Amino acid sequence: MPDAVLTINAGSSSIKFGLFEIGSESDPRLLNHGQIEGIGTTPHFLARDQAGAVLTERRWTDPGVTHEAVFAELLRWIDGHLGEARLVAAGHRVVHGGRRLTAPAQVTAAVLAQLDSLVPLAPLHQPHSLSAIRAVTALRPHLMQVACFDTAFHRTNAGVVRRIALPRALTDQGIERYGFHGLSYEYIASRLPETAPGLAAGKVIVAHLGNGASLCALAAGQSVDTTMGFTALDGLVMGTRCGALDPGVILYLLQAQGMTAGAVEHLLYAQSGLLGVSGVSSDMRALIESQDPHAREAIELFAFRIARESGAMAMTLGGLDGLVFTAGIGEHVAAVRRQVCERLAWLGVAIDDAANDRGDPCISRPDSRIAVWVIPANEELMIARHTLATMDKPK
Amino acid sequence: MPDAVLTINAGSSSIKFGLFEIGSESDPRLLNHGQIEGIGTTPHFLARDQAGAVLTERRWTDPGVTHEAVFAELLRWIDGHLGEARLVAAGHRVVHGGRRLTAPAQVTAAVLAQLDSLVPLAPLHQPHSLSAIRAVTALRPHLMQVACFDTAFHRTNAGVVRRIALPRALTDQGIERYGFHGLSYEYIASRLPETAPGLAAGKVIVAHLGNGASLCALAAGQSVDTTMGFTALDGLVMGTRCGALDPGVILYLLQAQGMTAGAVEHLLYAQSGLLGVSGVSSDMRALIESQDPHAREAIELFAFRIARESGAMAMTLGGLDGLVFTAGIGEHVAAVRRQVCERLAWLGVAIDDAANDRGDPCISRPDSRIAVWVIPANEELMIARHTLATMDKPK
Repeated sequence: MPDAVLTINAGSSSIKFGLFEIGSESDPRLLNHGQIEGIGTTPHFLARDQAGAVLTERRWTDPGVTHEAVFAELLRWIDGHLGEARLVAAGHRVVHGGRRLTAPAQVTAAVLAQLDSLVPLAPLHQPHSLSAIRAVTALRPHLMQVACFDTAFHRTNAGVVRRIALPRALTDQGIERYGFHGLSYEYIASRLPETAPGLAAGKVIVAHLGNGASLCALAAGQSVDTTMGFTALDGLVMGTRCGALDPGVILYLLQAQGMTAGAVEHLLYAQSGLLGVSGVSSDMRALIESQDPHAREAIELFAFRIARESGAMAMTLGGLDGLVFTAGIGEHVAAVRRQVCERLAWLGVAIDDAANDRGDPCISRPDSRIAVWVIPANEELMIARHTLATMDKPK
Repeated sequence: MPDAVLTINAGSSSIKFGLFEIGSESDPRLLNHGQIEGIGTTPHFLARDQAGAVLTERRWTDPGVTHEAVFAELLRWIDGHLGEARLVAAGHRVVHGGRRLTAPAQVTAAVLAQLDSLVPLAPLHQPHSLSAIRAVTALRPHLMQVACFDTAFHRTNAGVVRRIALPRALTDQGIERYGFHGLSYEYIASRLPETAPGLAAGKVIVAHLGNGASLCALAAGQSVDTTMGFTALDGLVMGTRCGALDPGVILYLLQAQGMTAGAVEHLLYAQSGLLGVSGVSSDMRALIESQDPHAREAIELFAFRIARESGAMAMTLGGLDGLVFTAGIGEHVAAVRRQVCERLAWLGVAIDDAANDRGDPCISRPDSRIAVWVIPANEELMIARHTLATMDKPK
């Protein structure tokens, strides 16, 4: 009887899940996946098979549905679809592991307490991961749960990369650059030896461009720099987040415009980025289709800032051999990839426009000094692998 | 009878001045220069000749000395030392010209009102320039005064470089990247044709490394990007300023640590940077001499961030031909230049260690793909030139 592992990626209004069979194969194999959207309003449950065909769909009409009720439905659905397999563990994506949790960890009371203490470092993200863990704990107290941290992959960044130029008393309290999207980058790094063997030992920038967006500088598969910092607000322009911002702007908003900290938080996380610049949408697909010149400006700024930060990443790497695009925009928006690559032509990036338009795996020309790849993200598989590895670890 | 122009660079606690003869030569010629330090505590006036020999020194013991009294002393001293020359104008360095003042401007009531309105954009710097202008106006109401803006040189930056990813309603109010140290960069650009003719039409990064520090990307002598933004707090690590900072850190300090906006402002402007990281000093000379490992970490971070931002500047330039160091640290601290250049070796920077240690004008090796120069800053001459040009302009 094969075993199965559930992966959970809980965000502010949606939960993505994956169900993996762990058998004799080296890698967990995806059985089903899906998501629950509209949590807090009117939840909508959707489960699909490996090929993406819808297996089950359910809508709640009651907006008061609790996290626990949603997870109860998910676990019931899993029980009904596992067949012969047995659910042996749940792995969670957790945004922040802080300084101490630098590898996937089995969830214990001590680990939960540690994660609770990190909520102030990721107030808009961390609580959702914790709610999911607690909901599963309440429903299946004996199910093994593993927390996989988005920060952990960047633990290899050097001290000078992590350091923020504040008084040492503050950095000693943990105010340093952690970086995020680590599960995505770790997955890409794990794919390079088979997909782009020439890059596996090289200097590579991975651009994770989704609703959140960041870059990671990979040297021989290890993170040496990344654009997100203490929080997931720093670095690139995102759907609704501003990215890197002159700290003097915040002081101005507080002091000259009289905004509260809460209002500034809402502004920078929810009203800025592509949405703020375009005034049209936070969704890149909508901007690409829009005729509004402000939408074009938003796309141009998005690509410019990716290219500008790529220059910084190349410095930390001490050169550049390859560039990888991943996640929603990275995988599906050829125009963004083209704009970024055109700005990096001076470094030796030459893309094949036809291959880019088709969305081929390799989109650089054969004579490009820097190889450019598109590799689909798969954080779920990374969580499943970590969960499996943590289960197998001697206690 | 030759004419003379006074240049004034008024900071928070010191005023630097230069007295230039404007004759038949094309460039104003420095007669005397000096500074008044300790304003607000016990002012100390020091005037030197062209060669740097002290001509006059005066200390006030009364801490209540006003700005106007200090300027009265300066103007008296000038009258006594002008000889046959006649003071025809005073030129001021003004930090912020905003969106509308993009060229040096004769000070009028309208210009003063405009400058007053920009105080919230540079609350720690702009008021000192305005005090100086008002003190001179009170003492010499008929003396022509010219305001020269640190922001003006960057007016050539493209829209995508200037844009901050906030809602358009805010950027329309003037929240954009202005950049500073423009008078310094403009002077360096003016020197390239004679000093390093190969670079004048090329792609050059100028590193103005003083107590404040920034980079400027010059394409054929015009600014195309710079590391400071809306305020002089952004970009590189500075003596006591943090430079670029994840906006989430500020939200954390406000929300989780309960700091006020004023306390955060003081932290970021006055307690961070080299001082905060080292815990030793904001003065690079003291850090270089210190045996404290924290001092070494501060120097390493300072150089790393210059190199990292140089990667970003090279992207905007689309390549790199030259690198110029200027201002206090840039001109005098070989160890910082070496650390920066070593990190940029991948771009083709190869410095001559002996030339660097000697502080030669050109410190790159003959085979270095990128030429590296040390050019002394001279914002005063730039102010004198602008003042002269503004006087000569048809009204």
